[in-house]
Amino acid sequence: MSAASPTGAFLAFCRQWAPAVEQALRDLLPPVTAAPCRLHEAMHYALFPGGKRLRPMLVLLGCQAAGGDPTRALRAAAALECLHTYSLVHDDLPCMDDDDLRRGRATCHKVYGEALALLAGDALLTLALEGAASAGSGAVVELARAAGSLGMVGGQVEDLAVEGDPRQHSLERVQWIHDHKTGALITASVLVGAHAAGAGALPAAVDAPLRAYGEQLGRAFQIADDCLDLTGTAQELGKNPLADVALGKLTWPAMVGLERSLAAARDLAESARAHAARATAAVAAWRPEAVPALDATRALLQDVASYAVDRRS
Amino acid sequence: MSAASPTGAFLAFCRQWAPAVEQALRDLLPPVTAAPCRLHEAMHYALFPGGKRLRPMLVLLGCQAAGGDPTRALRAAAALECLHTYSLVHDDLPCMDDDDLRRGRATCHKVYGEALALLAGDALLTLALEGAASAGSGAVVELARAAGSLGMVGGQVEDLAVEGDPRQHSLERVQWIHDHKTGALITASVLVGAHAAGAGALPAAVDAPLRAYGEQLGRAFQIADDCLDLTGTAQELGKNPLADVALGKLTWPAMVGLERSLAAARDLAESARAHAARATAAVAAWRPEAVPALDATRALLQDVASYAVDRRS
Repeated sequence: MSAASPTGAFLAFCRQWAPAVEQALRDLLPPVTAAPCRLHEAMHYALFPGGKRLRPMLVLLGCQAAGGDPTRALRAAAALECLHTYSLVHDDLPCMDDDDLRRGRATCHKVYGEALALLAGDALLTLALEGAASAGSGAVVELARAAGSLGMVGGQVEDLAVEGDPRQHSLERVQWIHDHKTGALITASVLVGAHAAGAGALPAAVDAPLRAYGEQLGRAFQIADDCLDLTGTAQELGKNPLADVALGKLTWPAMVGLERSLAAARDLAESARAHAARATAAVAAWRPEAVPALDATRALLQDVASYAVDRRS
Repeated sequence: MSAASPTGAFLAFCRQWAPAVEQALRDLLPPVTAAPCRLHEAMHYALFPGGKRLRPMLVLLGCQAAGGDPTRALRAAAALECLHTYSLVHDDLPCMDDDDLRRGRATCHKVYGEALALLAGDALLTLALEGAASAGSGAVVELARAAGSLGMVGGQVEDLAVEGDPRQHSLERVQWIHDHKTGALITASVLVGAHAAGAGALPAAVDAPLRAYGEQLGRAFQIADDCLDLTGTAQELGKNPLADVALGKLTWPAMVGLERSLAAARDLAESARAHAARATAAVAAWRPEAVPALDATRALLQDVASYAVDRRS
């Protein structure tokens, strides 16, 4: 893909914060020695070792974008990863996608059985909203709306409904599903992070461009992911390639082909970059004390958008 | 059973607040016309018509006990019912208890299928924590801890682990499971309500007796429920009688017999009544403006304890 991440700033940010994010996850989770041990083992199994921890990194970035020190957002960052992981554990269950492989390993229910995997998912979701409370009740509402029946869960229901039913396929439909199933949580990551900055309620002038940034970014990531499903190897993906195709999943490349999908992802990344500039300008007006750091923050937000469509590094 | 509810005050309280609780549930839930409609139908199916709405009533009582107007706690009350209902929907799934009947009707997955029931449960849990945020981030943490791996979900895991394995049965074990599987949420109901009173952080002198009240009350309710499972009809129970026995569930009457179990429930109710008196005395010292209502509130809290072991009305 083109639009190569020009600065590598986001990957450097991820490397810098990865140890703190892993520690925040260990702090949020009960230890495997706590009763019931096997439940906590299953939760740890699902969470460690993790993937790229994209959502926690977006929480930290959202905090920085709102003029806060990312350290304040670490517990909320861990919360977003718990929420994402719960959704994977439940999606993999036999009554859902019935997947055997996740992040290159046996799925949670293959190791711990269906009942324990279901309950480990429930516990991770519960823990996620507890962790989000560290950023205030506004962050809880933001995350719950993104994750619930009008957000991620709703998107999952629609995704299952259209699976293998080509009569229901349209680009409008695929976009609705993406926006709900994955986009809502990407957007919530950025906004939960902004809440964690601890500067009180976000002014509409800050909330709106940050939200638009998250939405465009989420779309770019999802389309690029769907393209990777067609072109990547099992090792690169950590799951079986062509899994979406096998399930008859509704994806951008399935609707309009690889080339047009990649072009759309690039357009969305460009739009996200413009929203990032608007967001940091609004934060500069809201919190003048944050100005010295905002040039670097804007470049970082924009680099994430480039990274979304170019994962070469 | 003896220890008849002497005043009927709790049942009168329930009748008084039932319409407002039902309205709060309808306000918290998205309408069935919202997409995905079938998901929202499944959520409504699980919630309406409801049972006695015990947990919402305890939220309203907890608010009143902390000197607040129960109207302030209605959204949090609806949240507790959503959380309880999610746990029933997931418990009934084939990989868990595999129940066909709940509240006198087909279980959610029998009507909507496993995938949709799983997701409806996820959405109800998510919505519950969103609703609890109306009582502040402290209420979210209280509810999440009670519901998560160190609370209700942990209790469910242990309950499944000992099912049909008599070697693991002991009274200590049954109490641990009860305290986690059902007691934690009863206690959280009272405390979330107290948070909703909006008087800021609860002083330890108020928190401790309210918590002890909830714990003893929860134990009394659970033991009385287990006894009813042995003596009630399907119509009274809204589920198949002897269901616990059929599953080899660990219960008080299975361990020590019906008579000793009923005696224990009465002792617990008595202890709950004493904690109620301590709690209202502490509230009187904390919020003198609440004093005029506290005699009636104490009587009400104490009547709930009597009701727990005597459901004749």
